Amino acid sequence: MDLTKDFQEIDLKQSGKFMYELAERLYPICRSITGNGVRDTLSILKEFIPLKIEEVPSGTKVLDWEIPDEWNVSDAWVKNSNGEKIVDFKKLNLHLLNYSLPIDKTIDLEELKEHLHTLPEYPDWVPYRTAYYNRQWGFCISHNQFQRLTEGDFHIYIDSEIKPGSLTYGEVLIPGNTKEEVLFSCHICHPSLCNDNLSGIVLAAKLADILKTMTLHYSYRFLFIPGTIGSITWLSRNEDTVKNIKHGVVLTLLGDSTPFQYKKSRQGNSEIDRIVEYLLKDEIGSKMLDFSPYGYDERQFCSPGFNLPVGRLSRTPFEEFPEYHTSADNLDFISANNLCDSLEFLLKVISVVEGNKKWINLNPKGEPQLGKRGLYKTIGGQRLQKNYQMALLWILNLSDGSYSLLDIAIKSGIEFELLLEIAKELEQVKLLK
Amino acid sequence: MDLTKDFQEIDLKQSGKFMYELAERLYPICRSITGNGVRDTLSILKEFIPLKIEEVPSGTKVLDWEIPDEWNVSDAWVKNSNGEKIVDFKKLNLHLLNYSLPIDKTIDLEELKEHLHTLPEYPDWVPYRTAYYNRQWGFCISHNQFQRLTEGDFHIYIDSEIKPGSLTYGEVLIPGNTKEEVLFSCHICHPSLCNDNLSGIVLAAKLADILKTMTLHYSYRFLFIPGTIGSITWLSRNEDTVKNIKHGVVLTLLGDSTPFQYKKSRQGNSEIDRIVEYLLKDEIGSKMLDFSPYGYDERQFCSPGFNLPVGRLSRTPFEEFPEYHTSADNLDFISANNLCDSLEFLLKVISVVEGNKKWINLNPKGEPQLGKRGLYKTIGGQRLQKNYQMALLWILNLSDGSYSLLDIAIKSGIEFELLLEIAKELEQVKLLK
Amino acid sequence: MDLTKDFQEIDLKQSGKFMYELAERLYPICRSITGNGVRDTLSILKEFIPLKIEEVPSGTKVLDWEIPDEWNVSDAWVKNSNGEKIVDFKKLNLHLLNYSLPIDKTIDLEELKEHLHTLPEYPDWVPYRTAYYNRQWGFCISHNQFQRLTEGDFHIYIDSEIKPGSLTYGEVLIPGNTKEEVLFSCHICHPSLCNDNLSGIVLAAKLADILKTMTLHYSYRFLFIPGTIGSITWLSRNEDTVKNIKHGVVLTLLGDSTPFQYKKSRQGNSEIDRIVEYLLKDEIGSKMLDFSPYGYDERQFCSPGFNLPVGRLSRTPFEEFPEYHTSADNLDFISANNLCDSLEFLLKVISVVEGNKKWINLNPKGEPQLGKRGLYKTIGGQRLQKNYQMALLWILNLSDGSYSLLDIAIKSGIEFELLLEIAKELEQVKLLK
Repeated sequence: MDLTKDFQEIDLKQSGKFMYELAERLYPICRSITGNGVRDTLSILKEFIPLKIEEVPSGTKVLDWEIPDEWNVSDAWVKNSNGEKIVDFKKLNLHLLNYSLPIDKTIDLEELKEHLHTLPEYPDWVPYRTAYYNRQWGFCISHNQFQRLTEGDFHIYIDSEIKPGSLTYGEVLIPGNTKEEVLFSCHICHPSLCNDNLSGIVLAAKLADILKTMTLHYSYRFLFIPGTIGSITWLSRNEDTVKNIKHGVVLTLLGDSTPFQYKKSRQGNSEIDRIVEYLLKDEIGSKMLDFSPYGYDERQFCSPGFNLPVGRLSRTPFEEFPEYHTSADNLDFISANNLCDSLEFLLKVISVVEGNKKWINLNPKGEPQLGKRGLYKTIGGQRLQKNYQMALLWILNLSDGSYSLLDIAIKSGIEFELLLEIAKELEQVKLLK
Repeated sequence: MDLTKDFQEIDLKQSGKFMYELAERLYPICRSITGNGVRDTLSILKEFIPLKIEEVPSGTKVLDWEIPDEWNVSDAWVKNSNGEKIVDFKKLNLHLLNYSLPIDKTIDLEELKEHLHTLPEYPDWVPYRTAYYNRQWGFCISHNQFQRLTEGDFHIYIDSEIKPGSLTYGEVLIPGNTKEEVLFSCHICHPSLCNDNLSGIVLAAKLADILKTMTLHYSYRFLFIPGTIGSITWLSRNEDTVKNIKHGVVLTLLGDSTPFQYKKSRQGNSEIDRIVEYLLKDEIGSKMLDFSPYGYDERQFCSPGFNLPVGRLSRTPFEEFPEYHTSADNLDFISANNLCDSLEFLLKVISVVEGNKKWINLNPKGEPQLGKRGLYKTIGGQRLQKNYQMALLWILNLSDGSYSLLDIAIKSGIEFELLLEIAKELEQVKLLK
Repeated sequence: MDLTKDFQEIDLKQSGKFMYELAERLYPICRSITGNGVRDTLSILKEFIPLKIEEVPSGTKVLDWEIPDEWNVSDAWVKNSNGEKIVDFKKLNLHLLNYSLPIDKTIDLEELKEHLHTLPEYPDWVPYRTAYYNRQWGFCISHNQFQRLTEGDFHIYIDSEIKPGSLTYGEVLIPGNTKEEVLFSCHICHPSLCNDNLSGIVLAAKLADILKTMTLHYSYRFLFIPGTIGSITWLSRNEDTVKNIKHGVVLTLLGDSTPFQYKKSRQGNSEIDRIVEYLLKDEIGSKMLDFSPYGYDERQFCSPGFNLPVGRLSRTPFEEFPEYHTSADNLDFISANNLCDSLEFLLKVISVVEGNKKWINLNPKGEPQLGKRGLYKTIGGQRLQKNYQMALLWILNLSDGSYSLLDIAIKSGIEFELLLEIAKELEQVKLLK
């Protein structure tokens, strides 16, 4: 069970390529908080990870909420008086206001404009807009196109339906040696948006794919859920499971090229917070953010009644990059390389999560004689490196049951990986347990 | 019971004018730690606030101290050999060493000089000096006048008496919904000095005047007492009351134009300390000072046997402005405007003191659905302001019984007033209690 | 029992001279972790301090270790083919690899070179090397000499023996009023090295000499022990004594002219750590170092099974000055003056250790009336100094059982010595106990 070595054998480049290609397949699908787009997405993931797909009927009470009616759309367009499709859902699903009601009607420009959404600051981009709980219809177009519209009749056609159905989500549980769990969660409710939603989905799926064959201390749970209503649904159906969650990370916005930002859990000093903080010290430009009650599904996991040790890993947070929730968050905005770097960082996190224990020095009075155990050599060699000896001394000195290996890494400034290796050697000569 | 709104209806300008005019009336009175000056002062305050006046006989044991003999003075002057009054108590009561013994005698310049006090660094100003526990007589004059004195006989006349009487102080208790108290204390033992003593007196009186008709959570106690011996006397007679004091502020030096300085209570992190610190963040140039055992009556309230949560609000502290304890601390040194600003700040303090509670989120698992309760609107409007929504989320997230509204204000950076308003709305829809 | 006054009567200059001359006597002796060099050293110290000398037989189990065989050496040299002694142990004992096996053999230059140790970076200096647990023989010479060696036969002669004997150490216990102990420890296992080992030895001896006639609160224990194996031996034989140790300092590298550096105990905030930190604030350029498990015998005292409040006082730490473990750490590298300054600092440490108590204000409600107890004078004089009055107020205000005099010194910024003097005055007038 040497996870670090197992991880070293992973072909990261290849994994990056795999994730990017997966994003390319998922990109055209029109996802929302319910509907076939979610089902299509999950069935693609199920090709390579053991995904359990759940359907929760509309109207089901989930905590303070209720599962909404299901939305599906077959087609949607706007034709001008010449019969030309000037807006076409099939070309870009962002054009349709998400959860739009069906309509088939001819209207004039003035009425049309009341239903058009644009982004004047970025006139080339199409915005992404939703109307989940507020029934209406609408289209999203670029501001440039909006300004070119001329008087005339417009044929509006939306072939959608909103009716009782179910909310769909997917879940993977990879069992470890204990029932204690590490949770990774991503949202699957956005249509053609890459950094926001697809980057999290492909990373979570690839991580599950990697871990599914490994020997693990913790059990690992991956949630592929619609934002807000999905985490609320999952929490309401899994109150017993929740108490097993020892660490968790919400994954989103991990495909662009900016440095990592980690938003701490509400607890603020949970082990996962400290682990990520420790690892981010080596990531130039990275930032630790304090918890705030706005954001992604960490809002629900960290609501006071659950207060789980769940943080969020992103690169530039939402609302801080202009491409957020626009057509510019497309396949050009993410890259295989960036996804690969995010994966590599998450593997480091898992290495520390798995390896972080409190050891006990079995010879706590005075230093043990290292020489007679072959742990101290007077003649130079790789083992004699000062770092090695210091790591030994730090572990022995602090392993009194109150310091974890991570605590020792932070106090000593010695890298976690070396400490872990030496702790295992000390265990073998019965100096640690 | 919406105190904030009640406070908004106060005519602050008018209150400033009222306080300044009150200071003008009180200025000529010769106060000391005992005597008729204190009685005259209190009877003026009693015209508009429900003051209870206490008389404690000389010789009464109070804690480690004893009430001294009472001092009263009718007249005092120095005449030169031409019979001209060159120093006249009736023109400026600072001219007489406070607690001077009576005398009626003709002496030469040399002897006179032994009894004269001046301020060489500020040759135009008359110093304020006292000899409470050290019987003597003396006069205070400007250094310029001192240097102009020429040889000759001087007729010294002091018509004073020091004899058993009593120590006088005043007290107002404005009852609230609980027995828990907020204490405001000011000293009333200085003669014609405005920033030092009068500014605190008129502010405390005006505050009592404002609060006397309001519906309050806490009971409010105002003490008008001579410094040191007065607080020791009050404490010794009110040991049972003391345990009800939840917050307290000593008021002094609040009429000049410099920024506020708040000296923390001995506890150092009491709720009143944190409230004032929070509010001072918006006051440019203001300072928080650590507790030290030197100063005004906070010395007694914060002695280790009481250790009350009582801080001190001032502007520039004593001994740090040259006018301190001189004739220059006169009616020109304070202004209606500055008193008005001090009053406004104190009303803010009281608003937070009254509104600071720990709420409990009644729907702690996941976020409640705000939409169905009318707390979330998708179409813009005043309510949709991001600040409003963030305030909602912060209150819901942190109201688990361990965070007060002040804690939430500090953590979120959202102003207390908005949080208070929203907490009340959430209480109405039964999301908070 | 006024230790501060007793200390003021010490002739520090003379003490510095005494310590330096003692170092001169001890310098030529060839010490190691066992053997007659240690015995000779201790018998010189025994001339003036009540030293108990312990012998622990080779082979004795001490914690995880075992007492090694004893090493003694009578003579050692290298002769060139002309019969000239080119390396002579009797001239400088560093020339012999410490714990060298005996040998008497003629070898060629090539073979000789395999047994020579030099310091290329400091070609004039002879390095100090040991081979305690790794049997071999060798010589240490300057790199310049090494480079001048020419082909030829060399007669190697080492008249040493390594055989069962004992490990020797010395101990002084100066009893105080309580069984609680202050520990001073120094290592005595280095041959002709002055800053490293002799400075600690002469300081510990002089301190013991000073304290042996004084009335003390704590008992003082001085250990003169070989490094590592000595402290392990002492700890293994004194597990019961260990629990009495309330403060401890390892003394080493205290004869050079650089500022003090204090390495905190593993506890990190023990009283001795705070005392030294407080006193070092006045020592320009001094540093506080966090605990690390590498160094001198604090490694053993602070092993997790003992975790004693033992820090280390040095000037420039080992491995940070080039003379460390070379012939340049000689009598020119230390001075009577520097030893004297180190002694003076240690006496200050002892003054605070002895004087640091938690007093109780017997009149905690309000301030006591200082005037009636003669502690407050209205007319100037030395007593009236503001500092004196502030010290009085601080002690009275904080002496509630939770603050020690050191805490008060730190909080008030008033020097410990003045606080101690005033605390004693307050005790006399029954305001403190």
